[in-house]
Amino acid sequence: MIGIKSIASYVPVAGVDNYAQGAKFGKDEEFILGKIGSTFLPRKDAGQETSDLCVEAANTLFANNPQLKRDSIDVLIVVTQNGDEEGLPHTAAIVQDKLGLSTNVAAFDISLGCSGYVYGIYAIKGFMEAAGLKNGLLITADPYSKIVDQEDRNTTMLFGDAATATWMGEDAEWQLGKAKFGTDGSGAPHLKVSNGVFFMNGRQVFNFALLKVPAHLHELLAESDLTPDDIDAFCIHQGSAAIVDAVARRFEDKPEKFLKDMVETGNTVSSSIPLLIEKHVLGSSWKRVALSGFGVGLSWGSAIIYKG
Amino acid sequence: MIGIKSIASYVPVAGVDNYAQGAKFGKDEEFILGKIGSTFLPRKDAGQETSDLCVEAANTLFANNPQLKRDSIDVLIVVTQNGDEEGLPHTAAIVQDKLGLSTNVAAFDISLGCSGYVYGIYAIKGFMEAAGLKNGLLITADPYSKIVDQEDRNTTMLFGDAATATWMGEDAEWQLGKAKFGTDGSGAPHLKVSNGVFFMNGRQVFNFALLKVPAHLHELLAESDLTPDDIDAFCIHQGSAAIVDAVARRFEDKPEKFLKDMVETGNTVSSSIPLLIEKHVLGSSWKRVALSGFGVGLSWGSAIIYKG
Repeated sequence: MIGIKSIASYVPVAGVDNYAQGAKFGKDEEFILGKIGSTFLPRKDAGQETSDLCVEAANTLFANNPQLKRDSIDVLIVVTQNGDEEGLPHTAAIVQDKLGLSTNVAAFDISLGCSGYVYGIYAIKGFMEAAGLKNGLLITADPYSKIVDQEDRNTTMLFGDAATATWMGEDAEWQLGKAKFGTDGSGAPHLKVSNGVFFMNGRQVFNFALLKVPAHLHELLAESDLTPDDIDAFCIHQGSAAIVDAVARRFEDKPEKFLKDMVETGNTVSSSIPLLIEKHVLGSSWKRVALSGFGVGLSWGSAIIYKG
Repeated sequence: MIGIKSIASYVPVAGVDNYAQGAKFGKDEEFILGKIGSTFLPRKDAGQETSDLCVEAANTLFANNPQLKRDSIDVLIVVTQNGDEEGLPHTAAIVQDKLGLSTNVAAFDISLGCSGYVYGIYAIKGFMEAAGLKNGLLITADPYSKIVDQEDRNTTMLFGDAATATWMGEDAEWQLGKAKFGTDGSGAPHLKVSNGVFFMNGRQVFNFALLKVPAHLHELLAESDLTPDDIDAFCIHQGSAAIVDAVARRFEDKPEKFLKDMVETGNTVSSSIPLLIEKHVLGSSWKRVALSGFGVGLSWGSAIIYKG
């Protein structure tokens, strides 16, 4: 069974002091730390393309796993909505070349935002099993600094740039359990790019997440014959401190099990969940963890991963 | 086993008389029919978005298959590199809403060009099997009229707009066999968009296809313990009449088995192979068909489908 073998990440060292940015918009430190959740927002260098962020994360993954040879990678998926080159060609092809992978690799991009990692792990596992492939790289990299207007107080205090690379393969410590997905395109206007600039109706997105995510997690657990007690931790998309806290409280059971770790990353879109898993889940004593991503689309996905 | 149950398509009625367009560039009818392969190039209406083309193809699929209920669709993948809304949100979310599908659908876009259908059928089958889903829609829609410069003689005589919708599910007539994939991002500059305009180095792409596709098909057959005699037809991407003819001749065995049907469609990118399957394979007496898509990335994929 194909599962999650290892995760590495790339978070740019440079970035924005979010206290200073908040002050510009009349927001105090309590708001920045307590509601936004991030005192620092990493920003890629202007000269770095999305593919460069992917390459940084993947190179760290290869360095951390010397047994994983580049020429053994046979599938590469990049989850992004802010790729290189105006979307044609796909970023995964550029990453194949920059990483020096074999030309026998199947490479494509998946277009999803903050729900993308949950979809991505099932997409790559499924593709590998359907096509008989052995080693996959699932990369997330969605640098919103490309599209966020630094004068838009609704978005510029939220997003940080980052990338993650997940090695998917056999004999993995963490296996994929049951998953549930959802899409409501009638909410598409709440998170969109127009003329190259990102717009977010924060109130609508907050309400959507609060309405949808706790219920979706409860449904997933019920359909899996599990109770919240069976879950060691909940890794949900780190949209903001306020939304993680609100979802945790609405879930009504052990809000302290909901991980919150975004002080120095911000909302990293599809990278937020793998960043949590890399730092808190891999190598832990936990046995079963629930994931939930939600955002652009509107789109959501929840899944259970467990120690195999 | 999840396989191909039905395919429907949408080809705009309006379009360009390619003889007239060829005359503008000093190309005679022999060149247009014999080398380009298309006397007519369908063009979407200026007011139609990519999602509208998807909806037309999917609505025809539902009409052709009354037993397929909209609320039974649980996954929707759109293969495109020219989606709605500047790529964020993904087109699949917009299609979910326009088609009136359930909000329990998993929806995302795959970014691939002319190789996209071959990847797409394995991606959707794999995702469905990994996530335990029953009925999927795989839609291709990549209207190059959005990006082709009508004054660029290297591209404007080639591409036509179209969309296809494939119903993937259990008890399908056609099953997916072995597949092989490849990517060479060092060739990315040969097919790319810059400042919203598509560029193609036709000579490089032709050489790539002629070098890669016949060899890839031979490898696929050898690894499947099959010979060309075991294949009833080859459905390869209809890039142009010249490339289909050249690949067929280079393959060295029964070039007449290579379908060529693009006179009234042009190069429809990821829709070319499903258009061939819809028209010539479904309902035929054939038992085994080979597919091969190739293009933007550079990316290629070949697969065998067979009657289950």
